[in-house]
Amino acid sequence: MSETAQIEINTALFEYCLKLGDNGLILGHRLSEWCGHGPILEEDIAMTNIALDLVGQARGFLTYAAEVEGKGRTEDDLAYLRDVMQFRNFILVEQPNGDFAHTMTRQYFFSLWAFLHFSQLVKSTDETLAGLAQKSLKEITYHLRHASEWMRRLGDGTKESNSRLQQAVNNLWIYTEELFVNSESEKMLTKENILPGNEQIKADWNERVSELMTECNITLPAGNIKMVTGINKGGHSEHLGHLLAEMQFLPRAYPNSQW
Amino acid sequence: MSETAQIEINTALFEYCLKLGDNGLILGHRLSEWCGHGPILEEDIAMTNIALDLVGQARGFLTYAAEVEGKGRTEDDLAYLRDVMQFRNFILVEQPNGDFAHTMTRQYFFSLWAFLHFSQLVKSTDETLAGLAQKSLKEITYHLRHASEWMRRLGDGTKESNSRLQQAVNNLWIYTEELFVNSESEKMLTKENILPGNEQIKADWNERVSELMTECNITLPAGNIKMVTGINKGGHSEHLGHLLAEMQFLPRAYPNSQW
Repeated sequence: MSETAQIEINTALFEYCLKLGDNGLILGHRLSEWCGHGPILEEDIAMTNIALDLVGQARGFLTYAAEVEGKGRTEDDLAYLRDVMQFRNFILVEQPNGDFAHTMTRQYFFSLWAFLHFSQLVKSTDETLAGLAQKSLKEITYHLRHASEWMRRLGDGTKESNSRLQQAVNNLWIYTEELFVNSESEKMLTKENILPGNEQIKADWNERVSELMTECNITLPAGNIKMVTGINKGGHSEHLGHLLAEMQFLPRAYPNSQW
Repeated sequence: MSETAQIEINTALFEYCLKLGDNGLILGHRLSEWCGHGPILEEDIAMTNIALDLVGQARGFLTYAAEVEGKGRTEDDLAYLRDVMQFRNFILVEQPNGDFAHTMTRQYFFSLWAFLHFSQLVKSTDETLAGLAQKSLKEITYHLRHASEWMRRLGDGTKESNSRLQQAVNNLWIYTEELFVNSESEKMLTKENILPGNEQIKADWNERVSELMTECNITLPAGNIKMVTGINKGGHSEHLGHLLAEMQFLPRAYPNSQW
């Protein structure tokens, strides 16, 4: 491979690792906001554990991103010293927690994507990525089961819980298309067998979501819906800046502190 | 005056200027959160204007604080590079906006204090303080009238508006005692005729609040209420840290930027 091609691949790989890392970091932070506020103790602990899993995954992917970049930045620099426009997470995962139905719907949509994506990523020709995917997959499998069970309980529960779940699905649906938008550089990585293609994952995701919604007595939004995407241009909703302000306060206020 | 005494007075004056400056800065920031979200256009503009007045006052007092301190810090350093424990504002003003009734009650309680306090501070032997008080007083007089009028309209309006105002008064009342707690160093400044005493201000404040509440058909909380104070020990509610994270993001993320 020519040196130019290798540099191009490294740049693409860096951006892709940011995407996976940022998804874990931002969704993990959102879930951590529930800590001490869960509807029941067991859920409080479950959500906090899932948050820890996701931040752990983020650390893996951001460490690898920093290594691929090769400019001496650490995973902490990437997590705490970038601003909104440099974040590559899905707009879905930065959405506010809302009520428990919103949190679980966000979690289900994301976990199903992550499950399907990581199930393919384990076959990557990039051994580090394959290893990180393998490690994450065990956790993601549990996250998906946990969120799916809650979708069923809420959808099939009371009139109130069903109506709240329907509202959550209506509100969050517009952010799901972005899960399947691949940038040019990601397409290049797919050609190199580093990153799985999207078509089959998208088809599987849609099929499984449809099935579960039927089980839950939830109607998926249909018709002429304006879907929101923007990740590959660094576009985000207004919520990310507020989240970062809070998440990054300590390292910004006390730079280079050690403990 | 001995050099030691002068140093003591300067330290006390610095802390007192922080208190006045921080009150304006934090309340101004809170009000600015309404910008674009006001219940009607005119109120949106009114609250944003009051926010600007308060931030302007804050700038004056923090500039003087920096000058008194004499360590080369600027008003911007004081506003943006201190953390929660170094802030000296009343716990009242950092409380979240809540609904419009909460915002107006917070504003009324504070503006009445500021009006009475600044009406005395104009006679300070410290000419800078007297000048800043004089300049602020014109603005505060308007803020007080604006908030008082809303208290009357809400209290004397519908059943819903009265009940929301009552709830706001119930919730915010516990933070009002702190307005009249003076530290040892403030008492020293009062002896030097730099800072007005509290007793008369407190009596006037209570009298005027009682009168207005009667007009508004609002009952003041009575009985064995646990009041919250802590300003002189650097104590704050959990809300201030979140506010600072947001307010200080830009200068923390982009240190020493110029524009």
